[in-house]
Amino acid sequence: MADQYAQSGEDGRPTEIPTIRWDEPPEGPVLVLLDQTRLPAEEVELVCTDAPALVEAISSLAVRGAPVLGIAGAYGVALAAARGFDVDAAAQSLASARPTAVNLAVGVHQAQSAYRAELARSGDVEQAAAAALGAARALHKEDAEASARMAERGLALLDELLPGGGHRVLTHCNTGALVSGGEGTAFAVALAAHRAGRLRRLWVDETRPLLQGARLTAYEAARNGMAYTLLTDNAAGSLFAAGEVDAVLIGADRIAADGSVANKVGSYPLAVLARYHHVPFIVVAPLTTVDPDTPDGASIEVEQRPGFEVTEVAAPQAPVAGGEPGGGIPVAPLGTQAYNPAFDVTPPELVTAIVTEEGAVSPVTAEALAELCARSGQVTRTL
Amino acid sequence: MADQYAQSGEDGRPTEIPTIRWDEPPEGPVLVLLDQTRLPAEEVELVCTDAPALVEAISSLAVRGAPVLGIAGAYGVALAAARGFDVDAAAQSLASARPTAVNLAVGVHQAQSAYRAELARSGDVEQAAAAALGAARALHKEDAEASARMAERGLALLDELLPGGGHRVLTHCNTGALVSGGEGTAFAVALAAHRAGRLRRLWVDETRPLLQGARLTAYEAARNGMAYTLLTDNAAGSLFAAGEVDAVLIGADRIAADGSVANKVGSYPLAVLARYHHVPFIVVAPLTTVDPDTPDGASIEVEQRPGFEVTEVAAPQAPVAGGEPGGGIPVAPLGTQAYNPAFDVTPPELVTAIVTEEGAVSPVTAEALAELCARSGQVTRTL
Repeated sequence: MADQYAQSGEDGRPTEIPTIRWDEPPEGPVLVLLDQTRLPAEEVELVCTDAPALVEAISSLAVRGAPVLGIAGAYGVALAAARGFDVDAAAQSLASARPTAVNLAVGVHQAQSAYRAELARSGDVEQAAAAALGAARALHKEDAEASARMAERGLALLDELLPGGGHRVLTHCNTGALVSGGEGTAFAVALAAHRAGRLRRLWVDETRPLLQGARLTAYEAARNGMAYTLLTDNAAGSLFAAGEVDAVLIGADRIAADGSVANKVGSYPLAVLARYHHVPFIVVAPLTTVDPDTPDGASIEVEQRPGFEVTEVAAPQAPVAGGEPGGGIPVAPLGTQAYNPAFDVTPPELVTAIVTEEGAVSPVTAEALAELCARSGQVTRTL
Repeated sequence: MADQYAQSGEDGRPTEIPTIRWDEPPEGPVLVLLDQTRLPAEEVELVCTDAPALVEAISSLAVRGAPVLGIAGAYGVALAAARGFDVDAAAQSLASARPTAVNLAVGVHQAQSAYRAELARSGDVEQAAAAALGAARALHKEDAEASARMAERGLALLDELLPGGGHRVLTHCNTGALVSGGEGTAFAVALAAHRAGRLRRLWVDETRPLLQGARLTAYEAARNGMAYTLLTDNAAGSLFAAGEVDAVLIGADRIAADGSVANKVGSYPLAVLARYHHVPFIVVAPLTTVDPDTPDGASIEVEQRPGFEVTEVAAPQAPVAGGEPGGGIPVAPLGTQAYNPAFDVTPPELVTAIVTEEGAVSPVTAEALAELCARSGQVTRTL
C-alpha cells in the first residue's frame, strides 16, 4: 500500500524531488513518486510498495503525463517481480489503469517482455526481476534522452517558423519534467527557447478541471525562471485575437496512425483557434506516443472521468469533507450531472507539425508518420 | 453600507428571493439584492442603504449581468435621491463601477435624467427622488417584458434554424432570471424551449474563472427542471466535434454599432468553434445593450479583473484565509501573474443572429442593427 511523508524544503523553497525514482531501502524495493496532486502547495513523496498502490497513484493522477506513465508502468512490473507478486496480473492491472495514454501499456509491455524472456532463458525469477528492472531503467534513460532531442528539434522548428525570435508560446496542461524522465515534451521546447534567450512569454492555460497548468506548469515555469503568465482556458481566445500568440505547443497522450492527436481536453479548441488565426499548432511527443494499431481519431478511446472533478473544486489545501463524492468543495448544485472527458482528439489537418525525438512530421499525414516510425525502427509493438 | 442576513428555506430548499427589489422599511428605503457570490450554496440577501454599498456589490459581482446592472444602476440613483445624498456623485460612481456593460450607464442615466427633469420642473427634491424611483421601476418592468419577448422571438428563431426540434443548446455564463427583471436573455430562450417540450439538452459551460455557469446557470436550470449537463469550458470542443451541439445561445454585455458582441470571456472561442462546425451562434440581448456610440469591437473597453480570480479558487463555502490577496485558496504558485479579461469580443461575421425584444438581426450588419434601433425608437441615448 502507499505511504507518504513530507519532504518540503526549509522556508518553503522547493526541494529537488524527482518525478519518479526506484529505491531499495532495507525493507525492500519501492517506487517513489512526487505526488502531483499536492503541488504546488506541498512537495510530498508517495511510496509505492506494490502494483495496486501504483495503480491507485496513476488513477488519482499522483503521477500523470504520457511519457512518465510508460516509465511508471515498467517500474511497476519490476516492482511486482522484485517483491514476488504475480507479474502478469500486475502488468494487466497497470496497463489498464488509464486507457488513453498508449505509453503506459507500452512501458508495461516492455518490462513484462524482458521478465518473460529472462525467465524462459534462465528459469531464475530473481534474474527475471532484474531484467524487468533493467528494462524500466533503460526506458527511463531513453525517455530523458528523447526529451533532450525533442527540445532541440522543437526549438529549431520554432525558430524556422518564427524567424523573428522572441517567441510567445501558449501551452496547455503540463508537459515538463513532471511527465518525463527528462525535461518533458512541449514544455522542454519552451524551456530550451528560454535558455536560448528566445522565449518572450509562456502563456499557461490553467487547464480545467484539474488545473495542471495552474498547479504544475506554473510551478515548473517559476522554478526555471521563465517569463510566464497564467490564464483561464477561456481567455486564450482573447490572446489569439490580440495577436499575442506566436505558436501553440502541446504534448500528446496518443497519436493515431493517421496523425490524430489525443491530448488533454481543451487542446482541440486551441487547435481550431490556432487555425482560425493562422498560428502554428505544434505537438511534441516521443515516438512511443504514436500508436500504429489505432488507425484514426475515432478509434481512440477517450477516458471519461468522474463528474465531481467538475462539480467540486479540489484545491490542494481544501479540507476533506466527509461523505461527499470527491471530498472537494461543491461549486454546482447537488445532483448536477457533468460531462467530463479527460482528453479530446485533434484531427491531423489542424496540426502544423508533430515533433518527436527522431524528427518532425509536417504536414501531418499517415504516410509521413509511418515513414518516421519505420526509419527510427523504434516502434516494435505487439500489444 | 451593506448588511446581509440569511434567508435560506427550510431543509435546504431554495426560497423565492428576487434578484433585485426595492424595499421601504421604517428605517428608510433600501435596495435588496440576492447575493450571487454565495449561490448555489446559500441564498443570502444583501441590503444596500446607499450608492457606495451598491457600487461594492456591483464590483464584487454580488449583482451581475448586463440587463440587471441597468436596473440596479437606476435604483441606485433613486436610493441616493431618496436618502438625500449627492445624486450626481452617486450616478457617476455607479455608472463607472464596471466599464463593459453599457446597460449600467444607461440605467443610471435614465434615473438621473428623470431626477433632474423633475427637480427643474418642481424644485422639489422629494418629487425628484420619486421621479428617479419611477424611472427605475419602469426600467425594471420594461426589462421583464423585454425578456418575455426575447424568449418568444429566440425560440421562434431556434425552431426556424433547427426544424427537427429536440434542441441541444450550449450556453456560457449566466443569462437567466439572475441577470434580469424577468427570466433573462439567452437562458430565457432555452427555458421557453424547455416549456414547449423542445429542449433536449442544455449544455452549461462552467465559465471560469468565476464559475457563473456551474454556480448560477446550473442553479437556475435545476430550479426549472430542465435537462442540463455541466462541463468545463474546455470540453465544449469535444461536444461540437461529436455533433452534440445544435446551437449556441449567449447574452451580451455590449453590442457595438457594427454588431461586435462583448460578452463573458470564453464566448469568442465558442463562436470560432461554432463557425468551424457550422453551428448557429445566437446572441440574445435587449436593445439597451446595443451601443451606437461604440463604433466597433476594437472600441469596446474590456474590463481587466484581478489576477487572484485565476490564481485562487474562491469556492462559496471556502474559509476566508486572512491576509491573502483574494481570500481564496491558492492553486498556482505564489507570485504567479495572471491575464484575466472579464470579457471578449466576437466580430459580427461570427454571429448568426442577434435577437432583441424588438426583433432579430441576421445576418448581423451595422445597417441592420441601426435600422432595428431606429424602428424601435427605444435607443435615445446621450451619455
